[in-house]
Amino acid sequence: MRSFPLSAAYTDLYELTMGQVYFREGKQDTAVVFDYFFRKVPGGGGYVLFAGLEDLLETLSALRFTDEDIAFLRDQGFHASYIDFLRGWEFKGMILSAREGEIVFPGCPILRVEGGLFEAQLIETLLLNILNFESLIATKASRIKYVAGDRVVSDFGLRRSHGPGGILATRAAFVGGATSTSNVYAAEKYHLPVTGTMAHSFVESHDSELEAFRAFAEVRPVDAVFLVDTYDTLDSGVPNAIRVAKEMEKNERRAGGVRLDSGDLAYLSRRVREMLDEAGLGYMKIIVSNQLDEYVIKSLLDQGAPIDVFGVGTRLVTGVPDAALDGVYKLSMSDGRPRIKLSENLAKLTLPGIKQVKRMFDPNGLFYGADVIALDGEFPGNEPVPVMYHPMEPGKSLPIGELRQEPLLRMVMKDGKRLGPAPAVAEIAAYASSRLGLLPAEYRRFENPHLYKVGLSKALLRMRDTVRAEHSK
Amino acid sequence: MRSFPLSAAYTDLYELTMGQVYFREGKQDTAVVFDYFFRKVPGGGGYVLFAGLEDLLETLSALRFTDEDIAFLRDQGFHASYIDFLRGWEFKGMILSAREGEIVFPGCPILRVEGGLFEAQLIETLLLNILNFESLIATKASRIKYVAGDRVVSDFGLRRSHGPGGILATRAAFVGGATSTSNVYAAEKYHLPVTGTMAHSFVESHDSELEAFRAFAEVRPVDAVFLVDTYDTLDSGVPNAIRVAKEMEKNERRAGGVRLDSGDLAYLSRRVREMLDEAGLGYMKIIVSNQLDEYVIKSLLDQGAPIDVFGVGTRLVTGVPDAALDGVYKLSMSDGRPRIKLSENLAKLTLPGIKQVKRMFDPNGLFYGADVIALDGEFPGNEPVPVMYHPMEPGKSLPIGELRQEPLLRMVMKDGKRLGPAPAVAEIAAYASSRLGLLPAEYRRFENPHLYKVGLSKALLRMRDTVRAEHSK
Repeated sequence: MRSFPLSAAYTDLYELTMGQVYFREGKQDTAVVFDYFFRKVPGGGGYVLFAGLEDLLETLSALRFTDEDIAFLRDQGFHASYIDFLRGWEFKGMILSAREGEIVFPGCPILRVEGGLFEAQLIETLLLNILNFESLIATKASRIKYVAGDRVVSDFGLRRSHGPGGILATRAAFVGGATSTSNVYAAEKYHLPVTGTMAHSFVESHDSELEAFRAFAEVRPVDAVFLVDTYDTLDSGVPNAIRVAKEMEKNERRAGGVRLDSGDLAYLSRRVREMLDEAGLGYMKIIVSNQLDEYVIKSLLDQGAPIDVFGVGTRLVTGVPDAALDGVYKLSMSDGRPRIKLSENLAKLTLPGIKQVKRMFDPNGLFYGADVIALDGEFPGNEPVPVMYHPMEPGKSLPIGELRQEPLLRMVMKDGKRLGPAPAVAEIAAYASSRLGLLPAEYRRFENPHLYKVGLSKALLRMRDTVRAEHSK
Repeated sequence: MRSFPLSAAYTDLYELTMGQVYFREGKQDTAVVFDYFFRKVPGGGGYVLFAGLEDLLETLSALRFTDEDIAFLRDQGFHASYIDFLRGWEFKGMILSAREGEIVFPGCPILRVEGGLFEAQLIETLLLNILNFESLIATKASRIKYVAGDRVVSDFGLRRSHGPGGILATRAAFVGGATSTSNVYAAEKYHLPVTGTMAHSFVESHDSELEAFRAFAEVRPVDAVFLVDTYDTLDSGVPNAIRVAKEMEKNERRAGGVRLDSGDLAYLSRRVREMLDEAGLGYMKIIVSNQLDEYVIKSLLDQGAPIDVFGVGTRLVTGVPDAALDGVYKLSMSDGRPRIKLSENLAKLTLPGIKQVKRMFDPNGLFYGADVIALDGEFPGNEPVPVMYHPMEPGKSLPIGELRQEPLLRMVMKDGKRLGPAPAVAEIAAYASSRLGLLPAEYRRFENPHLYKVGLSKALLRMRDTVRAEHSK
């Protein structure tokens, strides 16, 4: 099963156009390094939850130009010798990356590709397409799970997803904290728990609501959830659900709960809880859906709404308000020389050189609030980083010293082959949850979150300023 | 080539859970009718451009449960006899639809599915997933094309698309008015013109910008476009582009243009135009990109920016601000009886019965500003609709009379087979363009667009009120 077309034509044309120039210049194998990073946290948040890595590695391992691709590219006028080269192409590069599920911040390299100029350039579009999207959705899901606390967050979004992007959306939602989904295909592909209730049409297509609930209870003896708002929630839906649940009890069976999909969910959930409890059905859960997001859920819980499960759709799988993470992929080394993209805007200057990121921990073991981007090998082993420098404000620095540190980037692919088996989504989600637990609350809040500092080591700062000065001459 | 997994498991679990109840009740083939419609125009606009139909029909024609799907569903505990039924399932229903590229409005049925209860219910998620997304993006593209006028709109969005949703995004962007794309895979699948320039990394990976441009010009003799903002747009990029273009002229070749990807695009494009013109390179085009949307493009053109091509990415392919069309799929008939979903909110009441939509034209041949939802067959042929009734405000009506009218829904699929060949994307785009030309400007403007009226025929209003009253008893 695939969530992606395994076609190397899944890219922007310019990657192939540039590739043809490199091929003609004999530079297709020139050693290069590219960095993946983003500049802005979506939705005004304080962090991004990095996701999509395993989908990327799986796709890269098997990426080829198909016969159809080759025929199409020939029609586009690419040269015959280049076409022959493409026909035999496989990705053979190396990838170092933060672990999937890691918490990452603007400006920090999250992933590094080392390889030949052609291959490293070609995969840019695919890499950005997967990582930007899954990280966006995992981040959104983690915000929703944060306010939902111990309550269940279930992904109901496939019908509002961006076409087959919905498959990745479901996976990423799990990385961020969702624990069930309605999406059968994604559940099948990624081995996820799948769940569901009933639609209004189910109730309408029976002669009465009561008959519909009875028919459903027969087929779902364990966890039947009744949708109670087709005609009238409090006067019809809930009384009928209670009646059928009591009938089930006579056969030693238990209904799962009721679902509310419209109306004032705070008010209704309280009334429904009372009605269920009065009927001795304290075990029946309340599931709600309808345009939920982290803000609506927070408001509901602030009002004391006794909700057990949040079914979240549109706003989870589209990642609104931004609906995109602005991740980019920038050349930092070519043919042994550090490279840079200049800009009048200091924030858009890229960082040259082969880099590693050092994450610092405070004495309590929490994230310290500072990541240092250093040259790879600048601080071997656990050699302390004495000080980090502000990337945009010359002269501004922060002492670091003896804090415990971890390198963020580790090798995950070599010679085009992944190292080690792919972790299951549940394992990645557990890692994400553990890392979020190390992030102090001031970076997690929604309103004006604390800014996580990302600085440069002395050697990197010097390299950047040197390369920049060379171009300004 | 596929933009979709051809798996009937690409659905929400509840469709399959309900299906098992229907199967057990022997109701899987009960005749039903479902309507597809939406309630709110995304982005505060005045219309939606309907897209995705041909992708839907293509997918439905070949949709099956794969062996993997069957194994997964067996593991989920579905009954053996139901599993056997699923194994042999194919969609055999009938679809009536607005033409792809039609202009549609809130509350109006755009597509109608008639078939057996199981099949019509099962396809809900897939149908919504495709139509909601492609209509969202086609609408966004049409807004961008509206302000761009005769200038070219090119889709550059794959790297910020929602995973493989980017394939559909490109197709939908063409339906709405884009005329080129960077997306090779989508171009290959849908036979679209593909285009591209170069990345900053291309310039950086050469020893100098001039050398990079020269190498590029050799390989792209016809339409080389030079990216001029890697180091310094006005002091380095444009002078180097001019120099290489003049060299090309000596060999009787012409450069295509320059691309600006940062900075003040209004100021820079004016300066660059002057520099190119002064060098006698009036034929070189100016291509711009960088966080464009309909509002930014309008602002640039209002400032007189001499731009020829807009490369639009993130905001086109994500359809922000809403990033979703809220289309729904509602049961309107079952077993010969009209069905309804009640709601305290009159706007969320569904419309029972088998319906057709009559689009009215004014004496100049433009859309009149009123669609009438009638019962199918209520006004045979071109029999005039005397009056339409407000769907939410009882007693309010609008006389219609002798206006020219067209039925919106026509049969496109019967017995699970599409009728007639699939039109090319270019043909659909031409239809969309012609229909947008019939929509008066007050419905196209971005700020507080005119509200297109959608009303009910007398018989439909009566049916709705009767069915509603039955449930209220």
